[in-house]
Amino acid sequence: MKILEDRIRKDGDIFEDNVLKVSGFLNHQIDPVLMRDMALEWKELYKGEKVDKILTIEASGISMATMTAYEFGVPLLFAKKTKTTNISDNVYSTLIKSYTHQIVYNVQVEKRFLEKGENILIIDDFLARGEALRGLINLCDQAEAHVVGCGIAVEKAFQPGGQELRQKGYRIESLARIKSMNGQNNIEFC
Amino acid sequence: MKILEDRIRKDGDIFEDNVLKVSGFLNHQIDPVLMRDMALEWKELYKGEKVDKILTIEASGISMATMTAYEFGVPLLFAKKTKTTNISDNVYSTLIKSYTHQIVYNVQVEKRFLEKGENILIIDDFLARGEALRGLINLCDQAEAHVVGCGIAVEKAFQPGGQELRQKGYRIESLARIKSMNGQNNIEFC
Repeated sequence: MKILEDRIRKDGDIFEDNVLKVSGFLNHQIDPVLMRDMALEWKELYKGEKVDKILTIEASGISMATMTAYEFGVPLLFAKKTKTTNISDNVYSTLIKSYTHQIVYNVQVEKRFLEKGENILIIDDFLARGEALRGLINLCDQAEAHVVGCGIAVEKAFQPGGQELRQKGYRIESLARIKSMNGQNNIEFC
Repeated sequence: MKILEDRIRKDGDIFEDNVLKVSGFLNHQIDPVLMRDMALEWKELYKGEKVDKILTIEASGISMATMTAYEFGVPLLFAKKTKTTNISDNVYSTLIKSYTHQIVYNVQVEKRFLEKGENILIIDDFLARGEALRGLINLCDQAEAHVVGCGIAVEKAFQPGGQELRQKGYRIESLARIKSMNGQNNIEFC
């Protein structure tokens, strides 16, 4: 998606160790027009597919997922990160490791909002190692819900998450796929 | 706002000790059409006011704040909750106590996204004691940004936060103001 790639080139900050910061328009300060453009792109990519619900994870996925849910005309469910390992009977939960924050989250959704047979489109801002996406798919599996596919804003295609999940048969539509990045003015998309 | 009051009556769960859960449509599973309706209501209420940016706090404010930012045609900034008291030079931070989770968060925004003289509309899902709102106002004060007003989805008007802030001169537009609630079928709005 050219407008997202252009925006990353223009407003993204690239640091050492393949760290990309998009705090100016995607996950701290947010451009709502870009969020809607991304939602329209996923709507087009998944046209013809039956989608009953959008699933994302707090916090930075919520903005784009809200716009996507609006465009699809379906509810949005966001998985909550809790610090406790306290698991109650009325939630599905899974552990997700955040490499950014070096912490393992216990991620939960209430069972009543993720139902057997529902067609789920998963939306998130980043895909690198695939930890978050595998966790969200795991929640759907526990509920016996069907994962229609995933919509990702920025995929670090030089990390293995996307490839591994595609090889398992999941459809993943990433709007910007980074092939390599080496400093501020040297980013290459797939 | 009648559609929000009706929705709370229909889909809200009221527990003892004045706890209202709106997980089905507002802060876990989210109805994006309701989010847009609320955004349009705030747009109407604040018409004629200059708004440069929407400010909210993660996570449950993000959805309605995204729609509001879209309708106003301005960026959204969401304050991040961190567990550490680690304060860096490039952020404004303030402590906010969550009575729900019995924890004190160090809430932060990057300084470059909250600028002197900017006109800020603060959006959040709940107002009870006013802790979160006072914290967000405090961040604006640190930045010397101007708080145009606040848009709240659900105000517990029987708790003191709203009254205290209005007495200080802040404009607060709550779309549903609960006067009292005593069990599932007994909720009264102002």
